[in-house]
Amino acid sequence: MQSASDSTVRRLSAYFRILEEARAAGNDVLSSAHLAARAGLTPAQVRKDLSCFGSFGKRGRGYDVAELREEIRRILGLDRAWRVALVGAGHLGSALFSYKGFEKQGFSIVAIFDQDDRLVGRSWGEIPIRPMKEFGRVAGETRVEIAIIATPAEAAQAVADAIVAGGVRGILNFSPRQLFVAEGVWIRNVDMAIELESLSFALARRR
Amino acid sequence: MQSASDSTVRRLSAYFRILEEARAAGNDVLSSAHLAARAGLTPAQVRKDLSCFGSFGKRGRGYDVAELREEIRRILGLDRAWRVALVGAGHLGSALFSYKGFEKQGFSIVAIFDQDDRLVGRSWGEIPIRPMKEFGRVAGETRVEIAIIATPAEAAQAVADAIVAGGVRGILNFSPRQLFVAEGVWIRNVDMAIELESLSFALARRR
Repeated sequence: MQSASDSTVRRLSAYFRILEEARAAGNDVLSSAHLAARAGLTPAQVRKDLSCFGSFGKRGRGYDVAELREEIRRILGLDRAWRVALVGAGHLGSALFSYKGFEKQGFSIVAIFDQDDRLVGRSWGEIPIRPMKEFGRVAGETRVEIAIIATPAEAAQAVADAIVAGGVRGILNFSPRQLFVAEGVWIRNVDMAIELESLSFALARRR
Repeated sequence: MQSASDSTVRRLSAYFRILEEARAAGNDVLSSAHLAARAGLTPAQVRKDLSCFGSFGKRGRGYDVAELREEIRRILGLDRAWRVALVGAGHLGSALFSYKGFEKQGFSIVAIFDQDDRLVGRSWGEIPIRPMKEFGRVAGETRVEIAIIATPAEAAQAVADAIVAGGVRGILNFSPRQLFVAEGVWIRNVDMAIELESLSFALARRR
């Protein structure tokens, strides 16, 4: 179970979304061919990914949508709420704070931090913006498990160090810089240019 | 060449970044085992992906970093500049406008649109914020090829329709809504929660 690769986990997230859509559309069963087609993969790849986690579906019958959705939800750790700190209260931080997709999957922002004295002391919703030097104490009190870095690139490594020193073991990095963290800390980087590259690939080919 | 899947193209973007890092670190040659390890894939997968586009590397010698980087750059359409319109000048739009990663890969924002009369007429840098009803004319004049949707979910489909009516064939959608576009239009969705899910997967497993 531990051995699933990052890309397998990303595909599980994609399957989860397809199953949510199927459920919303009132489909009870989905064949692996159908699931694969919607994810842009071969049926063999879908079966292999799912087989890492158990035995799902019946040969010739397909997957029970509600059951598989629930299983993947559990595997992805989405069957519980996660307490998240947002570091960086600039434009990106503000956009992420109001992004509906996080709360929907169980990620709740419970603390906000910034280095800028002009922002510290304000509140977004019910949550006060705290100075970064209070990260350790506040993260402990609010039981933060994941921190989102939405700071300028120059500040990001120092922020990551403070997050790890504060005992938080999961980091989502939006800054365009590769960060280094100790073993036992999970870090994921969001690279917003990657999706643009798949557009330029398609458009360049069209000519 | 046309048949490369979305996931293959995403992996090309990942290889490109690894090759850029290798070049910056002064490495001239990278084995497929090394490239695969850094991308979290098997060497066979790397060779298969690259074989879609030609013949690279020499058996037993590995890939020439500069050469392969240049080839992938060309395949991804990054060897030229792309003219991009930003639709939605709220917090997310502002964060995307100042995001350094786009310009670095050749994506230049040349026009900005919003529906809010209070924002229209202002400028970001040299670029005036225009009302959405002028999209067709302005996109034509500024030769926009790709549009980024950074609007609330409720507005996104109408915005996508206006973009397509304006003759733009590539859309990057940041709104958390599935959009429908005519055939011959490429759309990619950025789902910022997916990376959080790979963190919750890792953290849930750790217990």
